[in-house]
Amino acid sequence: MSTLVQDRLRAGAFGNAVALSCRECGATQELGPFYACTECFGPLEISYDYPSITREQIEAGPANIWRYQPLLPVPADIAESPNTEPGFTRLIRAANLGRELGIDRLWVKDDSGNPTHSFKDRVVAVALSAARELGSKVFACPSTGNLANAVAAAGARAGIPTVVFIPHDLEIPKVVASAIYTNRLVAVRGNYDDVNRLASEIAGEEDGWAFVNVNVRPYYGEGSKTLGYEVAEQLGWHIPDQTVIPVASGSQLTKVDKAYQELIRLGLVEEKPYRIFGAQATGCSPVAQAFRDGHDVVRPVRPDTIAKSLAIGNPADGPYVLDVVRRTGGVVADVDDEQVRQGIELLARTEGVFAETAGGVTIGVLKQLAESGALDTSAETVVFNTGDGLKTLDAVADRVGPAATIDASYEAFTAAGII
Amino acid sequence: MSTLVQDRLRAGAFGNAVALSCRECGATQELGPFYACTECFGPLEISYDYPSITREQIEAGPANIWRYQPLLPVPADIAESPNTEPGFTRLIRAANLGRELGIDRLWVKDDSGNPTHSFKDRVVAVALSAARELGSKVFACPSTGNLANAVAAAGARAGIPTVVFIPHDLEIPKVVASAIYTNRLVAVRGNYDDVNRLASEIAGEEDGWAFVNVNVRPYYGEGSKTLGYEVAEQLGWHIPDQTVIPVASGSQLTKVDKAYQELIRLGLVEEKPYRIFGAQATGCSPVAQAFRDGHDVVRPVRPDTIAKSLAIGNPADGPYVLDVVRRTGGVVADVDDEQVRQGIELLARTEGVFAETAGGVTIGVLKQLAESGALDTSAETVVFNTGDGLKTLDAVADRVGPAATIDASYEAFTAAGII
Repeated sequence: MSTLVQDRLRAGAFGNAVALSCRECGATQELGPFYACTECFGPLEISYDYPSITREQIEAGPANIWRYQPLLPVPADIAESPNTEPGFTRLIRAANLGRELGIDRLWVKDDSGNPTHSFKDRVVAVALSAARELGSKVFACPSTGNLANAVAAAGARAGIPTVVFIPHDLEIPKVVASAIYTNRLVAVRGNYDDVNRLASEIAGEEDGWAFVNVNVRPYYGEGSKTLGYEVAEQLGWHIPDQTVIPVASGSQLTKVDKAYQELIRLGLVEEKPYRIFGAQATGCSPVAQAFRDGHDVVRPVRPDTIAKSLAIGNPADGPYVLDVVRRTGGVVADVDDEQVRQGIELLARTEGVFAETAGGVTIGVLKQLAESGALDTSAETVVFNTGDGLKTLDAVADRVGPAATIDASYEAFTAAGII
Repeated sequence: MSTLVQDRLRAGAFGNAVALSCRECGATQELGPFYACTECFGPLEISYDYPSITREQIEAGPANIWRYQPLLPVPADIAESPNTEPGFTRLIRAANLGRELGIDRLWVKDDSGNPTHSFKDRVVAVALSAARELGSKVFACPSTGNLANAVAAAGARAGIPTVVFIPHDLEIPKVVASAIYTNRLVAVRGNYDDVNRLASEIAGEEDGWAFVNVNVRPYYGEGSKTLGYEVAEQLGWHIPDQTVIPVASGSQLTKVDKAYQELIRLGLVEEKPYRIFGAQATGCSPVAQAFRDGHDVVRPVRPDTIAKSLAIGNPADGPYVLDVVRRTGGVVADVDDEQVRQGIELLARTEGVFAETAGGVTIGVLKQLAESGALDTSAETVVFNTGDGLKTLDAVADRVGPAATIDASYEAFTAAGII
């Protein structure tokens, strides 16, 4: 089959990407719809023949992730194919939050401005390109939320049949925000693990299905690199001293590190030491636990946290997260659900950013690390918000509300003592 | 008081703006917290001493509305003051939707990517700058939704005390999405008109309050011009033949026209004929009714529509909308709530954009105009989506959902006949 795939590929289908290489044994194989090493079953990663590229060339590109096309496994004409055009989201100076936490130079990378309001639009856009180039007939994923929204929206815009699998007992808002885009939303009796298993089964049985987070996962993952590129570019082309990133599967954190390394290698930023920190919710903190215990192996857990978008009990990239964090002198830490809620409120009150629970996790961990001294509060620090509070309203709905309910008169207003 | 205000203002506080001028009698007055003409009580508008400016200068600016700073009533250093950094949202080529409607060259300007996911972030950012320069102590608004979110978020980030007034019976999600940013949310017993009246009363009684849509309204309104600038720039510096814009107060439509006129005047685009179309929901369509009747006066109505963000029964800029639409050869039309829902679904299914009800209105009207021949289907057309479907889930919640609910097995999946 692999030769057939190669024969079908057009020249430059994957841009400057040249091969898939195993993250465990280093064996390489040709580009195709593959995700496991044929030698050792290790996970595959994209390798590139890196081009020479200048800051000016990048800055002349579109205000979305395709400005980094030469560093992604997508064709040079990617911007011409219908896609959701995600990325180049706000990096805002967070002086108020910094003051609150005693951090001198703090920035928030706010990915809620993406088309379906999470960073998933980035990875899905790259997976969509791979699906298109591989001639996939169906675009699909198992998901409980953000990924479902992103895949359904991207598939609709690309005009490719899209099938999204969700647990049958998902909250109505999450169902609506996916079903609006596709008439092939499938509810599965069971929990997320059951849904995931079914997806893998279908991927094995059916030809031509691109499950974004299963068989085109190596391409998909590369989309997260754009977060790292953007942070560096938006800071004026340098890598921040410290970056605080949420950990679900762990892929995003490792890809931001990969992005920083690439920028150095390409001479787009100066080489410098930097530290990467991982953030988990205590109710699903297998990587933080392994970090604390000094282990290389991540022991799976059964998730129990309000931060559902981070609730992966057996994170595929957990060991690689430990590698990156230890190599760069960072920490993986966790906060409980009450601290997650406080983190959401703190970010909203200080910077006007309404994060989903995952953002509450990173803010909570940032606070903890600043207080414990694990984070250098005098160093330039970037913290990620990867999702949108409108999707996880329940987390804070019973904590915030009107200060007063008054009659519609000036007297009633002054009597209420609002200000 | 006005002299005191002038004395307090720093040089360049309002950029290239030079005066407030009456839209009715043309009388001018100095810049300050004024919104009604001292001669005739007509609405005031910002006048500029227009600079020379090139496309290259604009393109070198930030990827937000401040790239157009020289054309807004804000200081040259606006980007240094904490604000939500809205704008430069996606303009996507809508080939699928165009095919569906028989429109050859169609684009969607999607303002749901703004910080609080509506175009209100644009106008609020400009109002915030005015409040800051005028030395206002309090930043405030009456609102039922998008404006409340935008004001509360911007005020939090700017660190200015913010008071937001809402009707007491608002839906919980809308309350939460404002209350998360401010502990000075005030629920008022009554409907939106009562809340609005109270706001005007407070604006009259209290010194130093900046009500974004009351006493700093002339500045606020200018923020909508950025939608017009962006559309022209993103099309490669030309004005589209046809633009379809929702009409609530009508301000946005008139400001997009103002933006197009300014771009022509400044030589940034070529002069050409263009048509502007207004879109209303039938349940609140006083401007569409006046257009059909050939009247210059807009007769107020009591709103009854699911498109609540457009439900202004007595639109302040209604007569000016009629002027612009008639001058440019456009139409103001309306669609009923069922067509609004269909419009939301159509845009989501074809382009992966989940619009709020206001976007359903513009898509519904676009469809109607294309079918009736009122719109030239061979001309380049831009349609606006100004808000986010996540905020108006109820409009479509009972219309979309899973295609099937199945057991977690491959057999169950194939038996369901999904694809």
